[in-house]
Amino acid sequence: MCRWAAYLGPELFLETIVSAPCHSLVAQSHCALEAKTATNGDGFGIAWYGARPEPGLYRDILPAWSDPNLQSLCRQISSRLFLAHVRAATGGGTSRTNCHPFASGRWSFMHNGQIGAWGKLRRRLESLLPDALYDQRQGTTDSEFLFLLMLAEGLDQDPFGAAARAVGRVTEVAESAGLSPDLKLTACFSDGETLWALRHASDGLAPTLYTAQTPSGGRCLVSEPFDRSQSGWQAVPPESFVAIRPDGMTLRPFVPASFRLARIA
Amino acid sequence: MCRWAAYLGPELFLETIVSAPCHSLVAQSHCALEAKTATNGDGFGIAWYGARPEPGLYRDILPAWSDPNLQSLCRQISSRLFLAHVRAATGGGTSRTNCHPFASGRWSFMHNGQIGAWGKLRRRLESLLPDALYDQRQGTTDSEFLFLLMLAEGLDQDPFGAAARAVGRVTEVAESAGLSPDLKLTACFSDGETLWALRHASDGLAPTLYTAQTPSGGRCLVSEPFDRSQSGWQAVPPESFVAIRPDGMTLRPFVPASFRLARIA
Amino acid sequence: MCRWAAYLGPELFLETIVSAPCHSLVAQSHCALEAKTATNGDGFGIAWYGARPEPGLYRDILPAWSDPNLQSLCRQISSRLFLAHVRAATGGGTSRTNCHPFASGRWSFMHNGQIGAWGKLRRRLESLLPDALYDQRQGTTDSEFLFLLMLAEGLDQDPFGAAARAVGRVTEVAESAGLSPDLKLTACFSDGETLWALRHASDGLAPTLYTAQTPSGGRCLVSEPFDRSQSGWQAVPPESFVAIRPDGMTLRPFVPASFRLARIA
Amino acid sequence: MCRWAAYLGPELFLETIVSAPCHSLVAQSHCALEAKTATNGDGFGIAWYGARPEPGLYRDILPAWSDPNLQSLCRQISSRLFLAHVRAATGGGTSRTNCHPFASGRWSFMHNGQIGAWGKLRRRLESLLPDALYDQRQGTTDSEFLFLLMLAEGLDQDPFGAAARAVGRVTEVAESAGLSPDLKLTACFSDGETLWALRHASDGLAPTLYTAQTPSGGRCLVSEPFDRSQSGWQAVPPESFVAIRPDGMTLRPFVPASFRLARIA
Repeated sequence: MCRWAAYLGPELFLETIVSAPCHSLVAQSHCALEAKTATNGDGFGIAWYGARPEPGLYRDILPAWSDPNLQSLCRQISSRLFLAHVRAATGGGTSRTNCHPFASGRWSFMHNGQIGAWGKLRRRLESLLPDALYDQRQGTTDSEFLFLLMLAEGLDQDPFGAAARAVGRVTEVAESAGLSPDLKLTACFSDGETLWALRHASDGLAPTLYTAQTPSGGRCLVSEPFDRSQSGWQAVPPESFVAIRPDGMTLRPFVPASFRLARIA
Repeated sequence: MCRWAAYLGPELFLETIVSAPCHSLVAQSHCALEAKTATNGDGFGIAWYGARPEPGLYRDILPAWSDPNLQSLCRQISSRLFLAHVRAATGGGTSRTNCHPFASGRWSFMHNGQIGAWGKLRRRLESLLPDALYDQRQGTTDSEFLFLLMLAEGLDQDPFGAAARAVGRVTEVAESAGLSPDLKLTACFSDGETLWALRHASDGLAPTLYTAQTPSGGRCLVSEPFDRSQSGWQAVPPESFVAIRPDGMTLRPFVPASFRLARIA
Repeated sequence: MCRWAAYLGPELFLETIVSAPCHSLVAQSHCALEAKTATNGDGFGIAWYGARPEPGLYRDILPAWSDPNLQSLCRQISSRLFLAHVRAATGGGTSRTNCHPFASGRWSFMHNGQIGAWGKLRRRLESLLPDALYDQRQGTTDSEFLFLLMLAEGLDQDPFGAAARAVGRVTEVAESAGLSPDLKLTACFSDGETLWALRHASDGLAPTLYTAQTPSGGRCLVSEPFDRSQSGWQAVPPESFVAIRPDGMTLRPFVPASFRLARIA
Repeated sequence: MCRWAAYLGPELFLETIVSAPCHSLVAQSHCALEAKTATNGDGFGIAWYGARPEPGLYRDILPAWSDPNLQSLCRQISSRLFLAHVRAATGGGTSRTNCHPFASGRWSFMHNGQIGAWGKLRRRLESLLPDALYDQRQGTTDSEFLFLLMLAEGLDQDPFGAAARAVGRVTEVAESAGLSPDLKLTACFSDGETLWALRHASDGLAPTLYTAQTPSGGRCLVSEPFDRSQSGWQAVPPESFVAIRPDGMTLRPFVPASFRLARIA
């Protein structure tokens, strides 16, 4: 399990969300309150959008709480759209290429959750990727795979559909392997213009997700509130799909695509 | 605060104490039970004696729980005398040179505790070191300083006396700076033949220290027991000085040297 | 390209070959003389055999010349059989999982060379691996793949045949992809008892390989001699397969397996 | 020895100087042409000014050529004033706190050169620092010391005078220790408004320094030109002190302060 935070709105120093608040994401790397594990010390990362269509990316394997580079970058860099993540490894060793966010072209992606029985399913799942995306794989995590699978399913054209189909594919592969699907997916991704998030679990117990307006006039999405005194935190319900744009937030129910029914019909 | 473990006895794979038991030192890096902080994720180190008079040294800044090198080294290396440490930084950044154990010639040293108001006292204290030892300083911690100070006070000739005088010096400097002495010192050190440990605090609240005989016929010293089911753990009382040699353990009360009284007399 | 060194014989401190000589492997990380690149600063690793059947493994991403842990480990650890490697990345980022040697069970493997057009062939080649070995893949290099492929081809039963078949498979896949085979393979591997090495290139220009008896009464295999003053260095000819055991060295011509001919017949 | 590059002018992506040109600073980390050592692989750092008076700081111990974070940061961050450095260690281990640039308040500093016999002079020199600056010391290099000494000598009020006095102090201490002064100092520093540089050596053989106007309408200072095809590189003469402001560059002879003469008079 992991913790993450994201922001879209008027340009803001990253520290406003990532490192300055009393229960900031960096503080959550040490003592998260709503995660299965309080410690999220297996690396971290930030992706932020600026003048280019592609995000900048800074990831390292130290605990977020002890990295002076992260402190300095979050103080110095301001952005209208950024993603930040602290990791508690569930599978895949501690390496930079296994740290979130992942980036591909203008897309960035980060995740809190896991594909159950990843070790047993990895090869079958990776075979779903087209060559061009398979070649982009740098690490060994289920999370990076999910990002590439969503790209393969058309993230560029239809984010909701791509997420729904990706979840459906994972479910299908697990079932075809004789396993009960076991997917937890509280993920966040962006193309540099819109911020999307998804809260889903095959057992209904998806990791937490909250949203709030910020004093800057923007909106953030977080695994857990970074400031208990700030009012206005809203829990995103399970099985939801969120889209945040400069003009507001929309929220709709998330329904995975069902490939079995499709085939039966 | 930190956690540590040490061993003297018939040659043993390091993993027997460091990484294999259910509540091993590596497990304590993630969830210590008797420390002020459960997480000791700011680096780690091992020092072990083999065929040479000097110890081997392996230290790194990752959390002990996520370092595959540490796992492999502890499985492969066996030793008749070793020290191992997981760090929770109280002062001094996360760097290899701030990780314990420290080594100098045939000596090794590690520590759980701190010198209160280190920032205010650092310069005065460092000025106590003779040139040759000042030049050996690689990091910025109070712990490395205490090791060098004990060497300066004659660790080679008289370990008990050197520890007593080092504590006395720190006390003297704090008082001369108008501060209440605030020293916590549960330390362990060796010259490759004997294993010494000290449990002291100026307020009487020294970090915990336990000892037990091992099934291998040796003896270990630990911040907290690594195996709850193993009987025979013995708490080392506060204000004690322990010496372990192949032929047994001795324990005597620890009394810091008092330089003020000396001067009055 | 990379540099490596290996030893089999009476127990020896690793530093005797890895770090102490004037042109040791560590010195070669900074200024190799017979490699395409003088600098081999993209990480390093050692694998050594002791009391267990499996090797110990220490790998890190710093240049070998600046790692104090490596210096200390090589001074402290002695072994009858070890492999050591310094890396100049040709493909695959700088990460611990991309550092040599690689280990699996009692086997260890390291490599100097590359599979040409690895990016284009990676997916086809990885599909050759059986599930159990595919699951062991931790990094993204062609070198780790070659090790797993040799294991898949029966390294345990027939090292020469496994190497010959692995080279044949890579050649076959390159040709089936419409590419000229371009494989350089000066590799070294061990099961903890015997040390094997291979010097092969599809264009006849394989990286250099030397061997010599050591004053300790053992034998070493190296990319380039570590001591110009030591007489007795013998260049291993291209297209050779070497086996070193406590009772001596054998050398035979290496001929890749030809699957096309096999199919024609 | 090391290599560095700095820029002041209209906002520019850092990559324009640091990583994109054929002989960029990152390329120089691998194969510098005018340095004593071609390889500058012992860490790197960037300091850049943005909306705050203090610089952002990113430093790490990998070789610059292999750090994907550095690549991404230099592509994403633009700045009107930045310093960048690749290190070849002459003294002081490879650690982040020994990497340049160093920062204190709004000041940043980086250096190519060394204080001869640093090991023998370190303690005497460090005793020159006032308490507040001594407490800021994080690493063990002569370079960080020179920065702190210049701050102690009044960098805020009089950069030229502070540099002249710092060089004079080091000379004085070396002579009082019975050593011939041996200082090489091609340094660069900034308060966020002006960029200063100094080229000095006690033996007249100071490391190289060049300057050129950039197509962006700004000016850069570099250890060696990053683009051989770009015309307009101007070698800064030895014993010079350079100041670059948005309205232009001034260059004056550098003369160390002489404390001996002062005392005689």
